[in-house]
Amino acid sequence: MPKAQFQTFSTRSRPDLSAARLKSLRSALQALGAEGLLLPRADIFQGEYLPPSEDRLAWLTGFTGSAGFAIVLKDRAALFVDGRYTVQGKAETDPAVVSVVPLAETSPEDWLRREGKPGARIAYDPALFTARGLKRFESAAADAALALVALKSDPFDPIWEDRPAAPASDIVDHAEIHAGESAEAKIRRLQEKMAELKLDSLVVSECPSVNWLFNFRAGDVPHLPILRAFALVPREGKPVLFVDAKRLAPDLARRLARSVEIVTPATAPGDGRAELSSRLRQVAASGARIRLDEESAPVLLTGVIEEAGGRADAGTDPIALMKAVKNDVEIEGSRKAHSRDGVAVTRFLNWLDTQAPKGQLTEIDAVIALENFRKEAGDLADISFPSISAAGPNAALPHYRVTEASNRKITQGLFLIDSGAQFRDGTTDITRTIAIGKTTKAMREAFTRVLKGMIAISLAVFPKGTSGAQLDSFARQFLWQAGQDFDHGTGHGVGSFLSVHEGPQRISKLGTTPLQPGMMLSNEPGYYREGHFGIRIENLVVVEKRVIKGGEREMYGFETLTFAPIDRRLIVKSMLTKDERNWLDAYHAETLKRIGKGLKGADLAFLEAACAPL
Amino acid sequence: MPKAQFQTFSTRSRPDLSAARLKSLRSALQALGAEGLLLPRADIFQGEYLPPSEDRLAWLTGFTGSAGFAIVLKDRAALFVDGRYTVQGKAETDPAVVSVVPLAETSPEDWLRREGKPGARIAYDPALFTARGLKRFESAAADAALALVALKSDPFDPIWEDRPAAPASDIVDHAEIHAGESAEAKIRRLQEKMAELKLDSLVVSECPSVNWLFNFRAGDVPHLPILRAFALVPREGKPVLFVDAKRLAPDLARRLARSVEIVTPATAPGDGRAELSSRLRQVAASGARIRLDEESAPVLLTGVIEEAGGRADAGTDPIALMKAVKNDVEIEGSRKAHSRDGVAVTRFLNWLDTQAPKGQLTEIDAVIALENFRKEAGDLADISFPSISAAGPNAALPHYRVTEASNRKITQGLFLIDSGAQFRDGTTDITRTIAIGKTTKAMREAFTRVLKGMIAISLAVFPKGTSGAQLDSFARQFLWQAGQDFDHGTGHGVGSFLSVHEGPQRISKLGTTPLQPGMMLSNEPGYYREGHFGIRIENLVVVEKRVIKGGEREMYGFETLTFAPIDRRLIVKSMLTKDERNWLDAYHAETLKRIGKGLKGADLAFLEAACAPL
Repeated sequence: MPKAQFQTFSTRSRPDLSAARLKSLRSALQALGAEGLLLPRADIFQGEYLPPSEDRLAWLTGFTGSAGFAIVLKDRAALFVDGRYTVQGKAETDPAVVSVVPLAETSPEDWLRREGKPGARIAYDPALFTARGLKRFESAAADAALALVALKSDPFDPIWEDRPAAPASDIVDHAEIHAGESAEAKIRRLQEKMAELKLDSLVVSECPSVNWLFNFRAGDVPHLPILRAFALVPREGKPVLFVDAKRLAPDLARRLARSVEIVTPATAPGDGRAELSSRLRQVAASGARIRLDEESAPVLLTGVIEEAGGRADAGTDPIALMKAVKNDVEIEGSRKAHSRDGVAVTRFLNWLDTQAPKGQLTEIDAVIALENFRKEAGDLADISFPSISAAGPNAALPHYRVTEASNRKITQGLFLIDSGAQFRDGTTDITRTIAIGKTTKAMREAFTRVLKGMIAISLAVFPKGTSGAQLDSFARQFLWQAGQDFDHGTGHGVGSFLSVHEGPQRISKLGTTPLQPGMMLSNEPGYYREGHFGIRIENLVVVEKRVIKGGEREMYGFETLTFAPIDRRLIVKSMLTKDERNWLDAYHAETLKRIGKGLKGADLAFLEAACAPL
Repeated sequence: MPKAQFQTFSTRSRPDLSAARLKSLRSALQALGAEGLLLPRADIFQGEYLPPSEDRLAWLTGFTGSAGFAIVLKDRAALFVDGRYTVQGKAETDPAVVSVVPLAETSPEDWLRREGKPGARIAYDPALFTARGLKRFESAAADAALALVALKSDPFDPIWEDRPAAPASDIVDHAEIHAGESAEAKIRRLQEKMAELKLDSLVVSECPSVNWLFNFRAGDVPHLPILRAFALVPREGKPVLFVDAKRLAPDLARRLARSVEIVTPATAPGDGRAELSSRLRQVAASGARIRLDEESAPVLLTGVIEEAGGRADAGTDPIALMKAVKNDVEIEGSRKAHSRDGVAVTRFLNWLDTQAPKGQLTEIDAVIALENFRKEAGDLADISFPSISAAGPNAALPHYRVTEASNRKITQGLFLIDSGAQFRDGTTDITRTIAIGKTTKAMREAFTRVLKGMIAISLAVFPKGTSGAQLDSFARQFLWQAGQDFDHGTGHGVGSFLSVHEGPQRISKLGTTPLQPGMMLSNEPGYYREGHFGIRIENLVVVEKRVIKGGEREMYGFETLTFAPIDRRLIVKSMLTKDERNWLDAYHAETLKRIGKGLKGADLAFLEAACAPL
């Protein structure tokens, strides 16, 4: 079998080196006049995925999970993890030097209140905190009489000897045939919005927004085809992009030259913070109102603006909403990307049905097979996140990620695979739960309830102004009737050849942004029985206008983007209403129509059988 | 026909006197050193219902609606009203001296920004604003270079010659057989909660909370059986109640003497603000943390506390949540109150069916008849709000209130009546929409959609932690499918022989408080076709625990409290699912069982027919 190109199954955790690394960090801090450090898992852009050069937390503690926070004091250190990572946190750290603290029990700020010695100087890197993220610690420090000290340099610089190089991938044009709108037009729309919001300047600190605005892509981070960089957009005139001009492809450089000023950081590749700060000082000196995105802008920049006399206006980056509403070209691109992806997923499902009964397949085998089917489908730029390939009880962990250590055989029961692709015309994200041999009544009933919820979202019709929070319960109602539920949102926003997780749109009780035509979302209810099995069914959808005969309001609904069979062996037919059966049969008929074209032989025969009416 | 005892149909609007009254107000303001006034429709308690002595807005402008705000400047005055009151606001005011401004077009603060002359001194009465309510105007005043001036006395005192007396009703015991918990036990629970919240003192400014805490009731306000008064609760020791001790019934005075300190205001009846302020100064002097309810506490008290060195902690009055969760005695009382109310409503429905075809009944006739049936049902203390009795297009205004001027004949089509009773054992609130002669298909289909939504809430099962916001869409989904909706929440909280509108629980997209067993709510979806007809169906429900076989979570559902027939003539049977038909048939069977006992003769025969299975 070929290898996986994009997903890895080993961890780079070295807990055995933690004691020594902590010791050198404490010395470095002492040299900077501090006795402790607050260390988030974050880079200066607050990105969800970090380049290895920015994963200070993993280097220091050994912990490689996707969310965590450490506090290092003079004589102790604690790693704070959420419920997903309690077990992994303990497995990857050295208990002699790092205590793992579940966030549900103690927050980092409460721990600091309790463990911090009055008078102690606790350092933080203002590049790694948002203003809001820091605030929690400011009041804790005041309560415990600690001094919080902003560092002027990265204390890991002198001590991290084999630190990987900062990413410096090639930056290429994201052509208008995929973007659907020129960078000039986007900049114009943004500047109109800024005028309306009375903003003099906007710091773009969320990297996907920078890539969206200027219509380019790169490869700075695994699974996310982006350049990590800041931009500064004035209300009028040319935006400034802080990046090494040499990284730009020649045709892109020529196009950008018309409408964007490129500032190459002195310390290339660099993140351009010095050059951005210097520009901000100039702009702020006239008392300008400068918008900082409260979700991603480092508090470092708040300080720069305020010290120079400007007004740091913490709020929402208006690009987030512009980017969330896809145009017709992006939507059509997504349909095509999903047709390609559906071919790969269908071939995978047929392969699984053929191979799994032999009893030798593992979760890793499944990941590798699916990745290769995706490559054969053509134009694969990357996977959109590490696949969740989970057999038996592993699937009861909604965010499970297979490693060589956790790898299980795919045996009788349920197998769950949540995966996605980055194509230049669209980002995909699909989950299917598949029967392996015999399944139990409890599995089939729970699967059917999850399916009913997923269909309820697919069939939802709702007026303009409705938010995802108002739809979320539609996906849960059938589980609720059985005394069951799932502990994650029903859906997240999805980017267009960008991050598979995108705001502000979401279907969750926290999703208060009104849904608008063009917003892409996942629809992925689930059910998890700890120690036994897990179920999730996920399609991507896009909000569309609906004209209803005799209707009085502007109404919206969802167009489904994802097409691949849903396992009929797991459906209890008598639990479906006529409307639900009609939806499923129509969905499968459409799947056969869209995906069948790309298949032949045994794969096509498999799809035909899988898409037969219930 | 007898008269109505509780509801009135005339308005006390005197727009013809506005010009003179505005003139005298401007003189009074000038004497106080100000050129303008911000005037909310509010008393010092921010109560929903005002005693006539507090309705400054109606006296000054003529406007008698339940929500409004005026700004008086040197040469102009504006009345701000929401969409419900645009027409009424114009009808009740003198356009020569008062401009009516729809809130949807201009907010009072924006109007002030635009119309206020730089340097002008604009007065406000700090007794009539919460801190939050004032804040909006502080920034507007800063923008427009106006000075906001806090008044030290009520400028209406010297000019309002025939001002009605402040209410001074008798205060009587609300016995434990109705309250279900002694005042001592409630005070103890509250003080435990205060300790947990680290509060030294609590100002109770929401009057229903005061009445709930001490287990008494009075009659200071129409339709709301309460004493208007403040209380001050220390973390330890006796709470203080600020009320004229002579108003207490002797047995109540004896009971309160054990656990409450009574402070009689010097200017009886008075609202005790001077005595409360004096106590607050004492408490605040030690730097105490004093909770002020941000929804109801006047900013006057914030100033008193802060000037005396205390910490005014704006937040939620913890009594609100305690009061919202009814105990078993209150729930059983509500069931009994609803049985009594159902008898009255059923007799009314039979009367309506007999009388309406003659074509002479009016909306006011219906109100009077229903009030009298309620009196005959026994133990009626008051109606719980002015009945919404609405024929034809009047029903398309969800908050319509009938007056002699608006009174319509009840003619062919739909008639909507939303009404309620105050009984000592419970507060009721019920809406029924009734077919008068022939109805159209559009009416019956819309009625059936509203009914399906109302049944969806009745049948909802949901896990602990779920808020009303997560349930609201269940009531709308069938209207949405038809391109329709309604522009109010699905349900509000309801008190126990207290306000028919109570927080924090609600079923609306804004209702983020988790629902708990014992919370009472209305379930009242509707549909309004402007200029044609209106539909609403309303039952009260109470949250109860549900044990689900094989379930894994703590689950809740709703027990229905209201029993009265739902008009079968308006139901399109083919639009109901089997579960919905089963719910309706079971509901009607239970209605016959509970209400039939209290009826005889033609009324019983009517109920039997109305409750037959679909």
